[in-house]
Parts: sequence; C-alpha cells; structure tokens
Amino acid sequence: MEQDVVRVFDTTLRDGEQSPGATLNIDEKLEIARLLARLGVDVIEAGFPIASPGDFEAVRRIAMEVGAGEGAPIIAGLARANRADIERAWEAVKSARRPRIHTFLATSDIHLQHKLKMSREECVARIGEMVALARSLCEDVEFSPEDAGRSDPEFLYQALAAAIQAGATTLNIPDTVGYTTPSEFGGLIAGIRANVPGADRVILSAHCHNDLGLATANTLAAVQNGARQVEVTVNGIGERAGNTSLEEVVMAIYTRPLVYGIRTNIDTTQIARASRLVSAYTGIPVQPNKAIVGANAFAHEAGIHQDGMLKNPLTYEIMRPETIGLGDSKLVLGKHSGRHAFQSKLKDMGYELNGTDLNRVFERFKDLCDKKKVVSDPDLEAIVHDEIYQPVELWRLEHVQVSCGIGLRPTSTVRLRGPDGVVREDAAIGTGPVDSVYKAINRIVQAPNVLTEFSIKAVTEGIDAVGEVTIRVEPTGDMPGDSHAGGNGEAGPGLALNPQTGYHPRRRTYSGHGADMDIIVASAKAYMSALNKMLAVYADKTNRVEVENDK
Amino acid sequence: MEQDVVRVFDTTLRDGEQSPGATLNIDEKLEIARLLARLGVDVIEAGFPIASPGDFEAVRRIAMEVGAGEGAPIIAGLARANRADIERAWEAVKSARRPRIHTFLATSDIHLQHKLKMSREECVARIGEMVALARSLCEDVEFSPEDAGRSDPEFLYQALAAAIQAGATTLNIPDTVGYTTPSEFGGLIAGIRANVPGADRVILSAHCHNDLGLATANTLAAVQNGARQVEVTVNGIGERAGNTSLEEVVMAIYTRPLVYGIRTNIDTTQIARASRLVSAYTGIPVQPNKAIVGANAFAHEAGIHQDGMLKNPLTYEIMRPETIGLGDSKLVLGKHSGRHAFQSKLKDMGYELNGTDLNRVFERFKDLCDKKKVVSDPDLEAIVHDEIYQPVELWRLEHVQVSCGIGLRPTSTVRLRGPDGVVREDAAIGTGPVDSVYKAINRIVQAPNVLTEFSIKAVTEGIDAVGEVTIRVEPTGDMPGDSHAGGNGEAGPGLALNPQTGYHPRRRTYSGHGADMDIIVASAKAYMSALNKMLAVYADKTNRVEVENDK
Repeated sequence: MEQDVVRVFDTTLRDGEQSPGATLNIDEKLEIARLLARLGVDVIEAGFPIASPGDFEAVRRIAMEVGAGEGAPIIAGLARANRADIERAWEAVKSARRPRIHTFLATSDIHLQHKLKMSREECVARIGEMVALARSLCEDVEFSPEDAGRSDPEFLYQALAAAIQAGATTLNIPDTVGYTTPSEFGGLIAGIRANVPGADRVILSAHCHNDLGLATANTLAAVQNGARQVEVTVNGIGERAGNTSLEEVVMAIYTRPLVYGIRTNIDTTQIARASRLVSAYTGIPVQPNKAIVGANAFAHEAGIHQDGMLKNPLTYEIMRPETIGLGDSKLVLGKHSGRHAFQSKLKDMGYELNGTDLNRVFERFKDLCDKKKVVSDPDLEAIVHDEIYQPVELWRLEHVQVSCGIGLRPTSTVRLRGPDGVVREDAAIGTGPVDSVYKAINRIVQAPNVLTEFSIKAVTEGIDAVGEVTIRVEPTGDMPGDSHAGGNGEAGPGLALNPQTGYHPRRRTYSGHGADMDIIVASAKAYMSALNKMLAVYADKTNRVEVENDK
Repeated sequence: MEQDVVRVFDTTLRDGEQSPGATLNIDEKLEIARLLARLGVDVIEAGFPIASPGDFEAVRRIAMEVGAGEGAPIIAGLARANRADIERAWEAVKSARRPRIHTFLATSDIHLQHKLKMSREECVARIGEMVALARSLCEDVEFSPEDAGRSDPEFLYQALAAAIQAGATTLNIPDTVGYTTPSEFGGLIAGIRANVPGADRVILSAHCHNDLGLATANTLAAVQNGARQVEVTVNGIGERAGNTSLEEVVMAIYTRPLVYGIRTNIDTTQIARASRLVSAYTGIPVQPNKAIVGANAFAHEAGIHQDGMLKNPLTYEIMRPETIGLGDSKLVLGKHSGRHAFQSKLKDMGYELNGTDLNRVFERFKDLCDKKKVVSDPDLEAIVHDEIYQPVELWRLEHVQVSCGIGLRPTSTVRLRGPDGVVREDAAIGTGPVDSVYKAINRIVQAPNVLTEFSIKAVTEGIDAVGEVTIRVEPTGDMPGDSHAGGNGEAGPGLALNPQTGYHPRRRTYSGHGADMDIIVASAKAYMSALNKMLAVYADKTNRVEVENDK
C-alpha cells in the first residue's frame, strides 16, 4: 500500500448531488465522471444504486464507460448495510475494471437509538455480516461508521475492528454533521490507528462536512494523523454547507509539501475546468471569494499595479493561476476556422463531439463569432452545455417575443412544438418579462410548478457576453402520478432517496439551464429545459423508487 | 482585561472593501457600520483614512455617527507606520467615544528586502517610533507585523516587544498571504505569548486569509492558543479568497463551548441580516453551500421529510436557523397596512427611515403588495437597498421600453433626465435586450466603460419575485481627468490605495444594483446606479488621492 499518496475519493455525484436542487441527468453525470477521470481522482463514488432505476443506470454506465479503461479510477456505489442495497450496488459497479462497494451503518448512540432502534451488539453483528457479504462479491469494500464523530470511541473501535475482520479494505470516518474541530478529528484518526486491531492493513479515510467552515482543516488534520484517502466534492457542494472541497485539500497538500509530506494523483491543471463544469450542471454558483476556484481567488495579481519592487511574486502569491488551469484561455479560433480545427479544440477541452452534436455547437460558435469580438473557453463551454446534455425535448421552444419597460405591461408570445408534433402558440402578460414568458408557456404546457430559484450571470466580461440562466422548479400537487409523499417512504416518482436519513425529500426539484446572448431567450430555454426534465420523470412510469425498510 | 471574551474586530469596511469591485459609497458604509454595531462587534475598522478624501470622510462619519453612543464599538482607522498616515488616521477616528489607531509594518525578510528596502534594525526602530507617536495621540493602539506568518520568529518577537514597549495595546498577527496551517498558526501565537516580553499585558489578535480554505481553522487555533481578538469580515469577503468569515468563527465558538471555553459579544440573531446587507451593497454573492449564511446551510431540515423517529433534531442538526436570525421572516404587513406600522417594521429591521425616503419605500411596498402574494423581509430589504443609499442621481432614468425574442433584433428606447435638467431620448439595437438598453443609455451619457460583471438573482422564491441585478463597470481610457496610472503612485482620481502594496489598482471598478419585478428595468437601474457612481467620482476634483512615499 503506497503510504506517500493520499487517495482522492470524489463524491460529487453522490453526496454532492444531495445538494438541494442539484439534480443531474445521466448524460450530465457521465460528462462529470469523464472529467473527474481526467482530473485524476482515484475513486469516483458514482451514486446510490438502490435509490432509483435512474441512479442505478447512471452508476452502471459510469462503471462501463468511465471505469473500464486501463488506469481508470475505481468506481464505487453506495449501499446501506443490508443485502438488497449491497447486491444492487454490486450489479451497478461490477463491470468497472476496479469496482468498489461502499457500505455504511451509524455507530453513534443517538443514531442507534433514535433512527435505527438497534443495540450496540446488533450493530456490530450487522457490520460483520454485511461487510462479509460485500466482500464475497467484490474485492474492494469500504465501510463507513455514520456519525463517527459523535460515537463513543471505544465502541467505534470495536465496530471498525469487526469491519476489518469481515474484509473491509478501506475504513472511512465521516463527520456527518460537521461538528468536529481539527484537533478532535485528527485525534479520532490517531485513536483509530492506535486502538483498532488491523488498522495498519487498511486505508483510513476522512469524510467531512463544512457546517462550521472546518471541513478542509479537519480533512487535513486526518491526513496528518495517517488518513490516506480523502472524500471530497468539486466546489465543496453537498447537503447544507456541503462536503470538503476537493480543490482546497488538493492545493493545500500541493502548496505545503513540507507540512504534509505527501502527494495526490490529481492533475491540478484540470481543477478550474472541473469547477466550471460542476457549477454549470448542478446550477450551484461558486462565490467570487471561494478559495482556489472563486473568480477573485487569483485576482490580486491581475488587478494590482506592480512595479519593479514587486516583481518578485513571492511577496503576495503562494500559488500560480496556471497551476489550476487558469489563464491562457482565449480561444485561438475565429469565424474563419474550420470544423476540424474546432473539433480538435473541443477535444482539447475534454469534449468528444461528433455528427449532429458537433454541427449544432459549431453553428452556435459561428453565430457567436459574428456578434462577439473575443470568444473564450468559458463561452464555448456555455454553448456546449446548452446544446448537449439537455433533457429529451418533449416540448420544443420555436419562438418567443417580448416587450416590456417602465410603465408598460410585460407581454410575451411563445410558440412551442409539443410531443405530438403539433405547434401551439399563446401569449400572456406578466409582472416582468420572464414572468410573462413563463405564463405564456404554462398556458400551453400544463405542468403546474413553482419557481424556487432564478439566477442569471454573464459567462465572461463585456455586455455582449453570453448570459447563462439557471432556474429550479418544484412540481405542485396536481402532477399526474404524484402521491404527495406520506410517512413510510411513500413518495412520488423520481424522488431521490437520502441514504443517510432513509427518507425522501418531500418534493424533488428540477434545474434547467439555458444560454443565449438574449437573457430573455436564455430564460425561456432554461424553463423549457427544467420542464422537460420534470415531465420526463413523470412520464417514465418505470422510474419508481423502490424502498426497503432499513430494519 | 477580560480573558473569557474573544473580541470581534470587523474589517469588512477596510480589508473587505479591498475585494475587486466592492466599492462602497459613504452611505452604504454608514449603513453597514450601523448593522455591525447592532451585531455587537467590539471593533469596526472603518477604513484607511489616508487613501483618499472619500475614505477619510467615511471613517470620520462612522466615528461620529456610529462610534459616539454609550456602548458603541471601538472605531479603528488604518495607518502605515509613518507620521502622515498616523496623524490622518487620528483625525478621522478621534471623535469616536473609543477611537483606535491601527498601524502596521512588514517584518518578513522577503517584504523588508523586496518591498520596503529596510534593514531589520531600521524596522524595529520605525516600529518603536511610530507606535509611540500613535500612542501619544490615542490610548488604544494596535500594531500588526505584516506577513508575520513568513517572518523569522526570533526577529518577530523582537519587533513585537518594541511595539509593546512603545505603548501598543493590541498586537495583531496577520497571515497576509493565507499560507499557514492551523498547527503552525496556533504555534506562532503560543510562541509569541511565551517569548515576547510584556505579551501578557496586551491583547493578541489573529488576522487570517482564506487562500487555502483554512482561515477559520487558523483563527480558531489562535484563539485556542490565547488570542483574544479575531479580525474577520462578514461573508468572508476580502482580496483574493477573502478574509476569515465572521459568522464561521463566531458560530464555531458558539456551537462548541466545551472546545473553546470562551464567548464573543456577538448577537448571533443579526448574522443573517448582516450577511444579506453586505452581499447587496458589495455586489458579492454568497454561494448556497457557504457555511452558516449560505442559502442551503440550514436546508436539510426544510427539505427532508421527517417522521417520528427523526423528531429528535439532534440526529442531523448542530445549529438552529433561528440562532442566526433565519426563519419567521414573513412580513406581517399587507396592502392595508398604514405608514406608521410600516415604519415600525423597518425600524425593527434596523432601518431608520423618515420623510421622503420613507415615502418612496412605502410606495414601492404598496406597489409590490398589489403584484405579489407574500412580501417577505428580504423583498423589503431589496426595496430599501434599491431606493435608499443610491449614489447622487446625476442622470435619472425616466423611461425604458424593450422588445426582443428569438429571431428579433433586440431594440430599446430610453429617456433620461441629465444633470442640466434636460430630458434626452434615444434608441439602440443590441445583441440582447440588456445590451440594447445599455447601448441606448451610452448614446446619451457619454461615459466610456466596459461591463466586467453582470448577475441577476431572484430575491425570494416564485416567478413574481423581485429581481436584483448587480453589475460592475470599469471606465475606459477616455474618461476626463484620467491619467492612466503610471508607476510611482500616479493614478487617476478615486483609485483606492492598497495599504499593503502601497499601490493602486490600475482601474477602479464601480458596482451598481437595481431591483425591480422587471429584470430589464432592474438592469437599466443597476447600470444608471453604476454610471452615476463613476461620474460622481470623476466629477469631484477634490477627490484626488494623496500618496506619500512609504520610505
């Protein structure tokens, strides 16, 4: 076992996707998984296969398509500590070159008593049984004692010893509620190494949450105390205040070699791109003062006049922007570039496009060249994200026109082509131009929903920039097939199961994104994208959640 | 000296305002200072008085208006270690009930050699002299050894001893480049306590930056090693990845009393409001997964179905949203509420409005009640921020009308009233509706600029929500009076001096915000607000920067 490498276990697609509204479709998940492989993560936790057929399918395809090649990352699937979950996870990951089953059970008294209604003895027995089952299917088994941070240390040691005994190869220590401090969490890892028989034969892993802003520090404290795997997400997305940020942990280890004396396998030059892709697909923005990947993280050098005395960058700089793949991002292509050069450029950026996909993006690019002086990589990414990896277009936006202003009644006309091929038109007045577009669309597409989030940002500088709109909608009660989610895990279709609580969010929300130089058109596209996502889930009767009681 | 309290030194208005584009006008600074006082911070660092007459005036007015009452916070002004800076800082803060002069000098060899061209002996002599000068003016003097994290510890101890000897009452230890780790930074504070003669008579303070995502952990490690002041900003804004977040440090101390065994004087229920106000005025958004103040930080409870077993909130919750002032925020007022009830509600929220200001906001509120079912506190805040604390309206937007859509040429007509009272109209075609509005405005107001940032977000849920637009513009070369910033501190008017580098950003940027139910109208308002801010700076010939050489 290599002890001078910290393995990076990325859970953007599993714990990260638990962020409110960060629903990703299969194509988006695959694209993120491909970029994670490019980034050099050691393990991709691709999802929670039992949660729904959609989750299962995403994990299965990532295992086959991203986990297959030589040097491909390990593909992990999550499972609660029960037979059905573990077998389902195995089915999903088994075609990967290096599959992993990740199973978990809470070990804190508060969870055992209030959630699981299980004694300590039953807990240890269950861990032994279920880790052994997983190990009978798969050579690589990770076990997590949920809420380890609040577990009685002596009992935790006992539970972990049982997991090792039964064949676990990685022990992951989660701080589920983001409650610990660096000295506590480092001490917990040190205690496990010192007191759990067999701990030297397995890899210890840290999984932290950022509720108190300490996830990065806690994870690094774990590494200093012997953890050799870190569980992280791109941009630190995840429930509540999110998970540990991949980029912060990786860059701290990279920047302070004398402190940590260890390395990761990450290609840091892919960090900026991974950050942009995850932000675009999940619709979760990155604040400008976010460490490493925020828009201002490296703004110091760019904005400040530096004369001869300050030429020594060491005075105010501890990292170079190029290290994370920033700078030098202007597209060298222009309006006279050919399709082939364009395709190579995209390939260079990590997008393998062919046929009609390539044609659509190429046409948009040509169009943009006519309107905008400088086309940058982020502009191109916005077009790719807008054209590709959209949900199936049940309804297609064919035309929209709007008039509005001070003292005017915002009015829109839209024309849509329906799933039946018939074109329908309608108009509506709204409180604002976007409201009027959405109301006109609602008159045609009868899919009641409320808008829970709406944001627009310019992709690059300049008023002629492409605008990217992200929205989230939540279906309201009248959707066909929705059962209003009762108590016992009963839920409408498509509601993602939370692996930790074992419950469903009352309502799933659907995000949509659209990009256009006209922000009203971009808003209309984003709405159609969210509606199509929502309608696809409701239309697919097979996409029902199978829930089994955890006890 | 109370040793069981950590003093909160808020530098949102000084180091926070160094964030790219976070330019605040005096009214905005005063409003933030008032809210900081309500929040219970112990010290407000109000600015860097020598930087410009505008900075001086802001500090002076905060000292008079916010620092005057009994129990008011200490008002600090920043000064480099030279006579002019220190005297200017004193002039600005002296009318506060409890003024403080905060002076600094770098102690790392890299800064002494490359930036200051000063020997270690000269450095110590300068510290003694300048702290003594400050102390002759003001009883409360803070000294910071810049880049302490990279200074030779033995020399640092010597420099700090000189500062204590000369009368410094607080020693602040900055990790200027965000390079240290918690164990290093905690060790640095412990080393200072153990090795600096007189360290027990002064307050030690921690000032961290978040480049590696460790600012909160480093600051807390300092507290655990005896620091009794923390220098922080609301939302963690500041240059690059920003400063330590006030809310993270305060809530970690609050949530983990057994670990830290100490308290702050902060009224935590004002945290959410402070976060929203600072975000609105600086135009710097807070990401949803930001610890404590992100939109999702407490979303777990709201989104997840909880049945009887999970009724015990301890299973997944370590903080209550009410603790930071979230929840229970629905405005109980409706369209039939009177002006007096409305005024009380605003006062309750921290806004003291009278006369025409109150009338303008009240009218907007009534208008909103007509259009929107539920008016929430954030809606009301958006209106107040939009109507009040706007720059002087040199140009006033009287009318705008827009038409756009797929296949249409976005076209706008605008009508503005100029500083001369004359009304002018024009129209323009753009690449999108906002572009067309801005181009039409540009035809009337001849103030060349580039748009460097543009974002829109809905203030609350629902498509009928108020949209808030934030933009940033940067004047281009042709502005009257602009000298294109040469090497030796020569700069155009209004460029803020960076106290650490001693240099000016090449260009100052101007933010504007606008709120309206029509996002195109909101975009037009935001642009007028940024233009008016920019033109006011250029028009004010007295607002020239006085620079003195630091050596």
